Amino acid sequence: IRDFKADDPFPNLVPDFALHSAGAYVVGTRCTVAYNGQASVVELFGFPVLAFSRSPTTALEPDTNLGECWAFQGFPGHLIVRLAVPARVSSVTIDHAAREVSYNASMSSAPRNFSVYGLESSYTAFTEAVILGSFVYNADTGPASQTFHLNSTTERYWEYVELVVESNHGNEMYTCLYRFRVHGLA
Amino acid sequence: IRDFKADDPFPNLVPDFALHSAGAYVVGTRCTVAYNGQASVVELFGFPVLAFSRSPTTALEPDTNLGECWAFQGFPGHLIVRLAVPARVSSVTIDHAAREVSYNASMSSAPRNFSVYGLESSYTAFTEAVILGSFVYNADTGPASQTFHLNSTTERYWEYVELVVESNHGNEMYTCLYRFRVHGLA
Amino acid sequence: IRDFKADDPFPNLVPDFALHSAGAYVVGTRCTVAYNGQASVVELFGFPVLAFSRSPTTALEPDTNLGECWAFQGFPGHLIVRLAVPARVSSVTIDHAAREVSYNASMSSAPRNFSVYGLESSYTAFTEAVILGSFVYNADTGPASQTFHLNSTTERYWEYVELVVESNHGNEMYTCLYRFRVHGLA
Repeated sequence: IRDFKADDPFPNLVPDFALHSAGAYVVGTRCTVAYNGQASVVELFGFPVLAFSRSPTTALEPDTNLGECWAFQGFPGHLIVRLAVPARVSSVTIDHAAREVSYNASMSSAPRNFSVYGLESSYTAFTEAVILGSFVYNADTGPASQTFHLNSTTERYWEYVELVVESNHGNEMYTCLYRFRVHGLA
Repeated sequence: IRDFKADDPFPNLVPDFALHSAGAYVVGTRCTVAYNGQASVVELFGFPVLAFSRSPTTALEPDTNLGECWAFQGFPGHLIVRLAVPARVSSVTIDHAAREVSYNASMSSAPRNFSVYGLESSYTAFTEAVILGSFVYNADTGPASQTFHLNSTTERYWEYVELVVESNHGNEMYTCLYRFRVHGLA
Repeated sequence: IRDFKADDPFPNLVPDFALHSAGAYVVGTRCTVAYNGQASVVELFGFPVLAFSRSPTTALEPDTNLGECWAFQGFPGHLIVRLAVPARVSSVTIDHAAREVSYNASMSSAPRNFSVYGLESSYTAFTEAVILGSFVYNADTGPASQTFHLNSTTERYWEYVELVVESNHGNEMYTCLYRFRVHGLA
């Protein structure tokens, strides 16, 4: 079984245990408030954006075209995923739409500080979650897909993994999570 | 903010203000008649094709696999798009399925002559539309994705852009528009 | 009209007459039993997989992300396809998810021995089907997409093609067909 290598630049060539088509799904978002893109909300130069809201499941799907994200308001944002199969977690990937295709060359809605936790069950309180690592998504100089490695692969198999986004890159209205992947050993 | 460069061969790496997932949508097609692929219509060697009809929104989505197009009859064909955010328009891209994957090596259903207009509102009459440029999609020797540059980036921000397809490459039954993109500055 | 070449490594650049978006569709699967992924079925280390069942049409669509397959039980598995347009068949392609993205580095659910038939009509009994070729999908050392060439391009045009999967690479519960393509001349 092949694990993700620290110098491997191709997250598309390793298993993603959070992939929706393979059986992973979102079991909860705790108190996270979805951003629903109402007409009264101003997006760019006073122009109201009417894009419809997408479900958090969007973050477990490969499509990262502009707008194909789960948008939420405030911090922290929680995403609890039941993995397709339990895994010893070694790394995670956060994807965002590329800066080149954004309308104002901005990555302001991208996650910045985030942490990853393992959960005993889908009912585990956040205070009981086991932290696996804390990271920073580098929207300024990094690529659209960034992989973050735990200090070591977890010894135990986790069936539930929780992503907690603690800040973004400056957008005061919402954070957009395009994709969250979980790598490791089955 | 990065604008599309005349020698840039990669329309996938610049913003597309007509992208559906980002919030753009079709507000009208004027009197354009959709081609509905009825069983009585002969497609190839007397064989009736029963493919179902797709909505014009298909032309604002990335998928250009064979058949993933908006088919319409006669000329001109109109597609009025409300951009995801208003933009100073600098260029547009027309995509068609590659000749290599077509069943008879034909690009006959591809647009040929077309023009692009800016509209004041979604109710603007065609006679009031402001022409931004007229172009020819080269299906004979060009690539599947072709980008066309205006003489200069428009000074004003357009919220609505209209594509008018005036001819195709010989198909007498329908024209297939796989994708229409609008580039510029937000 | 360009036919598939024996040394051409790019099945994405030749026509696929079994492509769903182009008008091909599944007309039947004979007595093949779909695998419905019930909770009582053990998938990996005693962990029940609850992924929902996909229709056989999935095998005529480009997406080969993990799980994007038609799963069936037992052998043989039959898939009868009405081609988008009748074709003189020259080769077929079987796609499976890449070993690198599977959770246990296994290709056990991939087809192994299979045969391809031409049918007079959608009602043709299997005993009346005309065999076009028998092949082996090499999951051990081959790529995820494998193209198989008939001894010669069929002289007649086939409107219906039947894939018969006779064995897989060891999975005792189900076989997963990610994609089936048919190449040739229109």
